Amino acid sequence: MKVVIDGLGGDFAPEEIVRGVIEARKTGGPEIIITGPENILEKEFSEAGGMPAGVEIHNTSQKVEMDEPPSKVIKEKKDSSLVVGARLVKEGKGQAFISAGNTGAVMASGIFIIGRLKGIDRPGIATPIPGEKKMSLLIDAGANADCKANHMLHFAYMGKLYMEKVLARKDPKIALLNVGHEAQKGSKLYQEAYSLLKTGDLNFVGNLEGRELFSEQCDVLVCDGFVGNITLKVTEGVAQTIITMLKNEVGRSVKAKAGALLMKGALKSMKNRMDYEEFGGAPLLGLQSPVVICHGSSKAKAIKNAIFVGAEIVEKKVIEGLGQLL
Amino acid sequence: MKVVIDGLGGDFAPEEIVRGVIEARKTGGPEIIITGPENILEKEFSEAGGMPAGVEIHNTSQKVEMDEPPSKVIKEKKDSSLVVGARLVKEGKGQAFISAGNTGAVMASGIFIIGRLKGIDRPGIATPIPGEKKMSLLIDAGANADCKANHMLHFAYMGKLYMEKVLARKDPKIALLNVGHEAQKGSKLYQEAYSLLKTGDLNFVGNLEGRELFSEQCDVLVCDGFVGNITLKVTEGVAQTIITMLKNEVGRSVKAKAGALLMKGALKSMKNRMDYEEFGGAPLLGLQSPVVICHGSSKAKAIKNAIFVGAEIVEKKVIEGLGQLL
Repeated sequence: MKVVIDGLGGDFAPEEIVRGVIEARKTGGPEIIITGPENILEKEFSEAGGMPAGVEIHNTSQKVEMDEPPSKVIKEKKDSSLVVGARLVKEGKGQAFISAGNTGAVMASGIFIIGRLKGIDRPGIATPIPGEKKMSLLIDAGANADCKANHMLHFAYMGKLYMEKVLARKDPKIALLNVGHEAQKGSKLYQEAYSLLKTGDLNFVGNLEGRELFSEQCDVLVCDGFVGNITLKVTEGVAQTIITMLKNEVGRSVKAKAGALLMKGALKSMKNRMDYEEFGGAPLLGLQSPVVICHGSSKAKAIKNAIFVGAEIVEKKVIEGLGQLL
Repeated sequence: MKVVIDGLGGDFAPEEIVRGVIEARKTGGPEIIITGPENILEKEFSEAGGMPAGVEIHNTSQKVEMDEPPSKVIKEKKDSSLVVGARLVKEGKGQAFISAGNTGAVMASGIFIIGRLKGIDRPGIATPIPGEKKMSLLIDAGANADCKANHMLHFAYMGKLYMEKVLARKDPKIALLNVGHEAQKGSKLYQEAYSLLKTGDLNFVGNLEGRELFSEQCDVLVCDGFVGNITLKVTEGVAQTIITMLKNEVGRSVKAKAGALLMKGALKSMKNRMDYEEFGGAPLLGLQSPVVICHGSSKAKAIKNAIFVGAEIVEKKVIEGLGQLL
């Protein structure tokens, strides 16, 4: 099995991508094809201690910028590390594609180059939500700004299968993110989604509110991509604001500074629990081969973990399972 | 000027409502009518040191439960503290209505008893978002689960007027909550809302992402009520989760406990900045008289502040201003 990774995707590419690839190989990860300009990648590998066995470079000449429109990327950047990476997976040279590059372009490459799974209109991004004891999955975290209720039903099936196969959760609990617990709550779209989820072959536990995001009451939390993206980014913003506020308050007094020093271990352990990097990336589910979308600011650890996520989706046959379910 | 308050609304009614009323009168607040069973309220006042001048009790016999459907409340609870409170405002006996009771029923009473302002299809809840230096307003925070783009334009006008008149902000910056900064981002609804906001007579500064909620880049942040409610509740959930995590981590080590003790001032000052009670309540704008919706868990301080919010909307003629704008 081989995983393909975009060597130029992300704010810290290619350095952190190369380091992540090396880490993955060191810790029993799959074989890897890395896309990008050969000379640059070779230099990075040699600076990082040499290219490990089981890694090959696939030379490409173009680079995708973080803010380029996806349609332009697909049309005009055919020899970019991103588009070529997706194409290698489409051609069967690799079984999963990983990128920390332009999220819209990664999604578009997944959908238009690798292709949708039969029966799935809208692939969805599944993002891990850390709880105190276990993680859950938010799907769709931003692939589809406009959804229909049956797309949301598909998100539920995809999430269920991922949790069953990759995380060995038995009969995963599916919930709908909504503005209240009662069945009739929310917009027309959410009322309709509630009905579909309830009658589907799912362990549907009902609606959960925004404040229950970390409450570990479900394994898979379903929403449309617009709401999912707002939810994730608000979470990021609140966490960042609280950390900044705490830092500022601490800066104002010597006593508080001493206190913060004593609490350092506790604060660090808290930060680890919220740490995006631990999870690697968010799989885009519903495609013929898995694509793992990494945060633009991913460093080596996140990249390594994303490589393992991609490999696991292949090994545990999540996609074959989804094909059978639909 | 008189403000009417629901004496039985909220988890801590009537005790905290009565204490809030006393606080408001002590600190120069408006005259107040409090609705509820006379004997119960009289007892509360006498236990709290006596009923201040400028406060009168309006006797009612029914109580609205927190989970009763709004339509049922309006039809079957005509002599409840909530419905009677709204009616007193409709009849001109008071100029603003405050309640910490069943949010849906408070909204319904506002819309169906007090009535919408001419030209406004959908009143919106305006919730204060605390920043480090100044607060901004999120509107609609949950009154309308299904919105059209022109409703969102109206939310912008309402927010603008509130910020200008009540908070004396000059030419308030209006932004749209969205999944990216570019004009073409988001769902069809948000793309259309963007166009309307851009061409409206507004200081429109464009889209803001969820992570920029506390970034103080705008005075008024517009969204539909479904997204607004999710945004607020996710914020609440994340803040609560971080505080709990910090507490748990601290519990694990003596060193961390000592540190937390030293940091106490910093943590308290942080908590104050996030404190819902400081702001009192969220005005429901777009009605013929203002309604202020308080958190169900409001205590005296929040109630007192909500009374001032209601009075200020009347004094600063926010509603007359909105009538002229449309």
